[in-house]
Amino acid sequence: MSDLPKRVRILEEGPREGFQIEKGPIPTARKIELIDSLSETGLEQIQITSFVNPKAVPTMADAEEVVNGFTRKPGVRYTALWLNDKGLERAIATGKLDIRGSLSLTASEKFLLRNQKRTLPQNLEAARAIADMFKHYSVTVDRASIMAAFGCNFEGDISVSRVLDMVDQIFDIAQEKNLTIKTLSLADTMAWATPLSIKRVVGAVREKHPDLEISLHLHDTRGMGIANAYAGLEMGVSTFDAAVAGLGGCPFAAHAGAAGNVCTEDLVFMCDEMGIETGIDLEKLVQSALLAEEIVGHPLPGTVMKGGSLAAMRKKLTSTAHGNTPSL
Amino acid sequence: MSDLPKRVRILEEGPREGFQIEKGPIPTARKIELIDSLSETGLEQIQITSFVNPKAVPTMADAEEVVNGFTRKPGVRYTALWLNDKGLERAIATGKLDIRGSLSLTASEKFLLRNQKRTLPQNLEAARAIADMFKHYSVTVDRASIMAAFGCNFEGDISVSRVLDMVDQIFDIAQEKNLTIKTLSLADTMAWATPLSIKRVVGAVREKHPDLEISLHLHDTRGMGIANAYAGLEMGVSTFDAAVAGLGGCPFAAHAGAAGNVCTEDLVFMCDEMGIETGIDLEKLVQSALLAEEIVGHPLPGTVMKGGSLAAMRKKLTSTAHGNTPSL
Repeated sequence: MSDLPKRVRILEEGPREGFQIEKGPIPTARKIELIDSLSETGLEQIQITSFVNPKAVPTMADAEEVVNGFTRKPGVRYTALWLNDKGLERAIATGKLDIRGSLSLTASEKFLLRNQKRTLPQNLEAARAIADMFKHYSVTVDRASIMAAFGCNFEGDISVSRVLDMVDQIFDIAQEKNLTIKTLSLADTMAWATPLSIKRVVGAVREKHPDLEISLHLHDTRGMGIANAYAGLEMGVSTFDAAVAGLGGCPFAAHAGAAGNVCTEDLVFMCDEMGIETGIDLEKLVQSALLAEEIVGHPLPGTVMKGGSLAAMRKKLTSTAHGNTPSL
Repeated sequence: MSDLPKRVRILEEGPREGFQIEKGPIPTARKIELIDSLSETGLEQIQITSFVNPKAVPTMADAEEVVNGFTRKPGVRYTALWLNDKGLERAIATGKLDIRGSLSLTASEKFLLRNQKRTLPQNLEAARAIADMFKHYSVTVDRASIMAAFGCNFEGDISVSRVLDMVDQIFDIAQEKNLTIKTLSLADTMAWATPLSIKRVVGAVREKHPDLEISLHLHDTRGMGIANAYAGLEMGVSTFDAAVAGLGGCPFAAHAGAAGNVCTEDLVFMCDEMGIETGIDLEKLVQSALLAEEIVGHPLPGTVMKGGSLAAMRKKLTSTAHGNTPSL
């Protein structure tokens, strides 16, 4: 019926994506509390903070304290985001993170011009400089990502051929810098993707690069997140970024009421119910989602955290199967 | 790549599904305002109210006033819900509705026992009585529906074979009562479906009944609504119930924070962006969704009404394409 993978890897980005965009200050201890809670769910990777300019992003000014404060659980990778050598140096200096490099290109020049004051060629130069930076710090780079791969609020639709060009450029830089890119992340940064465009773009990239592992980073601003993830699963995509409770949103995308990343527990729920292994304990993850909502102090978009999992319902039904209907 | 239909019919249930579940009283004039607004969107069918016991469902006590007050737009069908002959008589008496009959069975006996105090065999008898009732009032019946077709909060999973049995029972009753069922609605009343189970159930029904038009009624309580609709589209399903702004929820399902039907404008958005015709003006529908939210006085789950349509973004980008980046 379809080509669903047997197992998927879901990479948690909630603490970074989510806390970055919150307006009110969130106490460092509470950020740490969420990370430690997520560590118990079976997630294999958690992106916990951003080493960015504290003046530009005050909500991330406590990055070092967050890293110092959380408890590493064996078997879990803890990653962070940085945008330049200063950020990378800060991340390395903590001595407590899993430092992995990634080449990142953006498919929309208007987005680049607006947010990074760069043209597409200037951005290629920046990517080369970043590759050199990773080399300088002996950081392994085996991953690349294309931002705004499905469309852009400032440029409009992004063609499949543009994405394929970007992939070529990434491979050119990788060859030039002697890097082996194993994973390509296609990011729907501003929520322009539909299940059909997911299939088209993933299909086109896979046709040209059959050995490349494709990963999807999906935003849910227009409600397509889970459907887009399903379309990815049908194409055999087995790696997804997600954010617990649907924390986050793109601070640069100028969305009114922007939803964030696709919600981790909703994605785990869909996988569980379709027989796809995630290695994640959904009930624990729902507890983390409820904690995230309590921490930010306003409703978050996740739905399974409100509607409840079916596994929990089945359990309740089994335990009350001796006569009366349960009070659910 | 897939078997997407060229055109879909989206049947609006927001005014009935949505206002029924609201706790606070909603002025009749405001209900009428929403219906009249929906009439301008290109929707071909709008279910506007419920003729049920006003003591049991006080929010629907003004059913006659709503029907008297709204303005019929030529080409739009206006329907209502009823559960017995008294309700049907009231609907007919308005002289202003498109009265169509439907045979309805429920796949979960525990749900029936709890909410209608009937066993499965008793429910079959009730369906026969309802068929007789339609005959008595000369109401055409060409549609049937199976509630809880994908699972039930009180019974658990519902097997594909149970659904196929239900379809057989519907055809038995139809034959006995000399009715021709053209459309079968499969209702995920309590949000147990996943894209995979949608494909399994739709596929199994279609295999046995290739000429039957299948319609989906999807709830979004666990965030799967749009993904389930996409799975339906991939199976060639071309008729969907939906509720503007995601109004509604099942009053009997005992969900905490239950979301309602799949959101009409999010579904229209997905179809628009995938090149599937709906005949509906998305921008007008978003205005209706914003009106619905204003009327109920609390946030509703629709996302495109918050994130904005891509057509609107493209238009803005085109109109500002002479130099500067737009202020979106």
